[in-house]
Amino acid sequence: MSDLPKSVYLNEEGPREGFQIEAAVIPTARKIELVDHLARTGLKHIQVASFVNPKAVPGMADADDVVKGFQPVPGVDFTALWLNQRGFERALTHRDRLSINGSLNLYASNAFLKRNQNRVADQQRAAQHELIAMYQAAGVKVYRGFITAAFGCNFEGDIPVERVVRLVGDLLEIAAGHGETIDHMGLGDTMAWATPERIKRVVGAIREAHPDLDLLLHLHDTRGLGIANAYAGLEMGVRMFDTAVAGLGGCPFAGHGGAAGNVCTEDLVFMCEEMGIETGVDLDALIDCALLAEEIVGHPLPGAVMRGGGLKRFRVAS
Amino acid sequence: MSDLPKSVYLNEEGPREGFQIEAAVIPTARKIELVDHLARTGLKHIQVASFVNPKAVPGMADADDVVKGFQPVPGVDFTALWLNQRGFERALTHRDRLSINGSLNLYASNAFLKRNQNRVADQQRAAQHELIAMYQAAGVKVYRGFITAAFGCNFEGDIPVERVVRLVGDLLEIAAGHGETIDHMGLGDTMAWATPERIKRVVGAIREAHPDLDLLLHLHDTRGLGIANAYAGLEMGVRMFDTAVAGLGGCPFAGHGGAAGNVCTEDLVFMCEEMGIETGVDLDALIDCALLAEEIVGHPLPGAVMRGGGLKRFRVAS
Repeated sequence: MSDLPKSVYLNEEGPREGFQIEAAVIPTARKIELVDHLARTGLKHIQVASFVNPKAVPGMADADDVVKGFQPVPGVDFTALWLNQRGFERALTHRDRLSINGSLNLYASNAFLKRNQNRVADQQRAAQHELIAMYQAAGVKVYRGFITAAFGCNFEGDIPVERVVRLVGDLLEIAAGHGETIDHMGLGDTMAWATPERIKRVVGAIREAHPDLDLLLHLHDTRGLGIANAYAGLEMGVRMFDTAVAGLGGCPFAGHGGAAGNVCTEDLVFMCEEMGIETGVDLDALIDCALLAEEIVGHPLPGAVMRGGGLKRFRVAS
Repeated sequence: MSDLPKSVYLNEEGPREGFQIEAAVIPTARKIELVDHLARTGLKHIQVASFVNPKAVPGMADADDVVKGFQPVPGVDFTALWLNQRGFERALTHRDRLSINGSLNLYASNAFLKRNQNRVADQQRAAQHELIAMYQAAGVKVYRGFITAAFGCNFEGDIPVERVVRLVGDLLEIAAGHGETIDHMGLGDTMAWATPERIKRVVGAIREAHPDLDLLLHLHDTRGLGIANAYAGLEMGVRMFDTAVAGLGGCPFAGHGGAAGNVCTEDLVFMCEEMGIETGVDLDALIDCALLAEEIVGHPLPGAVMRGGGLKRFRVAS
């Protein structure tokens, strides 16, 4: 009936995306505690911090200490985010503990690009060439491409599907021009415009143009469709997702203007496992992490399965 | 690509399912206020109260006053729930204000039937014959069949698809034996066991056996899959849903053990409208109702679009 994948790759972004927006200061030790717990759930990819200007993002001022503090686990990739050369250089100092891979990024919305980066499209393309040069100089592989605002934009409205397809092709070409091969292409529903049908249209169109390219969905849950959009992606064979434990990263109940975080890791794990799609993750251990995350931030987080629980205990009992 | 319906029928259950579980007493006037606002959103079916034993459900002790108090709106069906003859008789006293229609109900889980009604399957079937007699004596049409725990059960585990198909046939037969025709068949994910793939399997199997039967999904969001399950239903052509404004009826943040309410009305309206499926509902007016509901209960409710907002304003601006 559908093209569901056999297994999924989950990129846990909770510790990075979650803690940076919290109003209260989260003690470094507690951030490390969450990372250490996540690393024992079966998750294989955990983004632990972002190396950004501490004046702009005070919640990430302790990024170096978080990275120095967690307990490495064999088989688990710990990653970090950076937005410029300075951040990249900070990340490089942790090469012994972090998986350092390069990411390229184009915007499907010029209005948002202007607003967010103060650049026009050609400048953003030029910046990608410079990024590759920076990565190559450091001996770092380019692994991910990413299209921001691929499904719609608060400042530009609906985004034509063909534009996204063209940008994906552009990014592959830019990488290829430098001898780099992009491993997977992320599609960001940055401002939560996607619906399941739009996911199918965009993914379908990219698939047609680039049948062998692995796609990743980065879905925000601001309008409650995150998990339905993830399902539509699964139906199209998408097997890579950015997720956040407990739905960390957004807080609909704390006055952040309604912007919500990434699709909730344990809700997606629950859905996948119940549909026979392997995640490699122990749901109960992950639910414990979600409850820990909630305790750490000190307010309710949007995850559902962390409250409702999985079904295993009922199957054993019945 | 899929069999999406052109329009959907939404049965708003928020005022009934929502207020009855609240710990605090909700003033009658505020319940009426919410019903009156909902009736002006374009919703066509609103369940306003349940006629149940006030000792068992204190929050519904004022059901008669709620029914007497709302402002009727032409074209809008106001309905109520009852669980026995006494409740039905109370509802009948409001025939001038309520749409009174009969509903039949079998359980896909014998363990849950025993626990909930203290009956075995044959007793529940016998009770349906008595119900029909009661409805016919009052000149009330049987319009809905309903299968409880159609997707799984905390006390019995997974429910075989064939059993649900058989129960649907049984219920149609029971009704037909009395000259009644069931208008639509509800499938209750009473304990939130459904996944999108299971929805497709169960709906598909019933479709095969009864191609002309309209199906309705009653989905709880306890494990975060409510909206994804609704989407799977839409893909299968299902066009009737029980919903609750703001996700009223469950309160993941107030210690109700994680049980969540029906799928959130405005989140479903948002998804449908964005995918070109008509709901007849004004999303902004419905969001106002969701915010009103939250103010009335005095704690956060789980709806997302009520916080994130719709997309219309961005399309106008861009």
